[in-house]
Amino acid sequence: MQNIDALVFDVFGTVVDWRGSITREGRELGQRKNIKFNWARMANAWRAGYAPAMDRVRSGELPWMNIDALHRLILDELLVKFRIEGLTEEDKDHFNRAWHRLKPWPDSVRGLKRLKKKFVIATLSNGNMSLLTNMAKNGGLPWDCIISAELFNHYKPDPETYQGAAKMLDFPRDRVMLVAAHKGDLRAAQNAGLRAAFVARPKEMPPKANIDLSPDSAFNYNATSMTDLADQLGA
Amino acid sequence: MQNIDALVFDVFGTVVDWRGSITREGRELGQRKNIKFNWARMANAWRAGYAPAMDRVRSGELPWMNIDALHRLILDELLVKFRIEGLTEEDKDHFNRAWHRLKPWPDSVRGLKRLKKKFVIATLSNGNMSLLTNMAKNGGLPWDCIISAELFNHYKPDPETYQGAAKMLDFPRDRVMLVAAHKGDLRAAQNAGLRAAFVARPKEMPPKANIDLSPDSAFNYNATSMTDLADQLGA
Repeated sequence: MQNIDALVFDVFGTVVDWRGSITREGRELGQRKNIKFNWARMANAWRAGYAPAMDRVRSGELPWMNIDALHRLILDELLVKFRIEGLTEEDKDHFNRAWHRLKPWPDSVRGLKRLKKKFVIATLSNGNMSLLTNMAKNGGLPWDCIISAELFNHYKPDPETYQGAAKMLDFPRDRVMLVAAHKGDLRAAQNAGLRAAFVARPKEMPPKANIDLSPDSAFNYNATSMTDLADQLGA
Repeated sequence: MQNIDALVFDVFGTVVDWRGSITREGRELGQRKNIKFNWARMANAWRAGYAPAMDRVRSGELPWMNIDALHRLILDELLVKFRIEGLTEEDKDHFNRAWHRLKPWPDSVRGLKRLKKKFVIATLSNGNMSLLTNMAKNGGLPWDCIISAELFNHYKPDPETYQGAAKMLDFPRDRVMLVAAHKGDLRAAQNAGLRAAFVARPKEMPPKANIDLSPDSAFNYNATSMTDLADQLGA
């Protein structure tokens, strides 16, 4: 196949390691404030709250809110649930922005730099523009362009996001490929007319999570890392 | 002063040399198609058609159109006016996209790389997202984020563009500074609550144009190049 002009990337889990990064920042916060807690549990619960929170926006129960605001909503609920006390507003705001500081997987920057030589590379994430911009700056992610679902007032997997990204980059949809570690995201991109590349990220979820990491011939590419994807695409 | 988090940049004329680039691409086109014409005249007329075309969008006479579409509208009129014949649709489309390939001024990339270490740097241009993305890729412009007036369905100098950019980057307006070679753009940014840095670009317009290149104490900074601005900002 090929005839691809642009690659758009899911970010949380596909390019960066949210679970390790949030757990680490939680531990630092706990040490600073002398709070004993299993921060890996916080990372998992925070992330688990994300899809239901987006659904509340999608259904109209909540007005349009960006991910920073949704993350904060979930964090405030979890601090109550887990009885974590003694955090100032500044502590909470800083911890909420840990999502701006998520660390890339070890192969991400190297792979993206290679892919950038051959394709336009852009984010296509539910994260807001400032979050994605700060994350790129912190992590050295060499995007040509940052595209957020925020620009379309729709969250993935709504088709407006995939189609909006292709339109914004001014390429036909079938010359744009979504790269993601999540099969639902990829299937939604295909239904919206884009191509799809799966990158398996076995460490994204906790060991017991039992997520589907197997290659799927329904996708145009199946890779084990960004550098493997670059190899397969001749970049 | 200082206390600035982000710099947003006008692009055409401030970061890239539209006049030299369009003239050069016109000459190449003329040689290829055996058309004798003074292509500097085309560059100047094309650019001169741009503000009136945006005004037609602003007034509602034309529906929202991006700059690629406006550029093409103007080009088609100028080809008739200048009696330039024999161009195929492909020739015209390629020439129209010369605006995606404008070359940076010699100090731009070096200055931006230094400024990027200290500030978030983003475009704030009337150029559309794909134009700015392709231009950055062609010219090696190291933006943290690409912001186009297109995202706000308003063209500069409408206040929605300056305020929208600050909101998108999630910084208070008075911690965001517009960098531009055009005083009207800078004054509009100030009126919208942003800071302003003037960069004189004496070669943007033809020698006879007699534009105002003098420093103005109303602006926060007055510089003679991007590297001079980096010096003044300690970057």
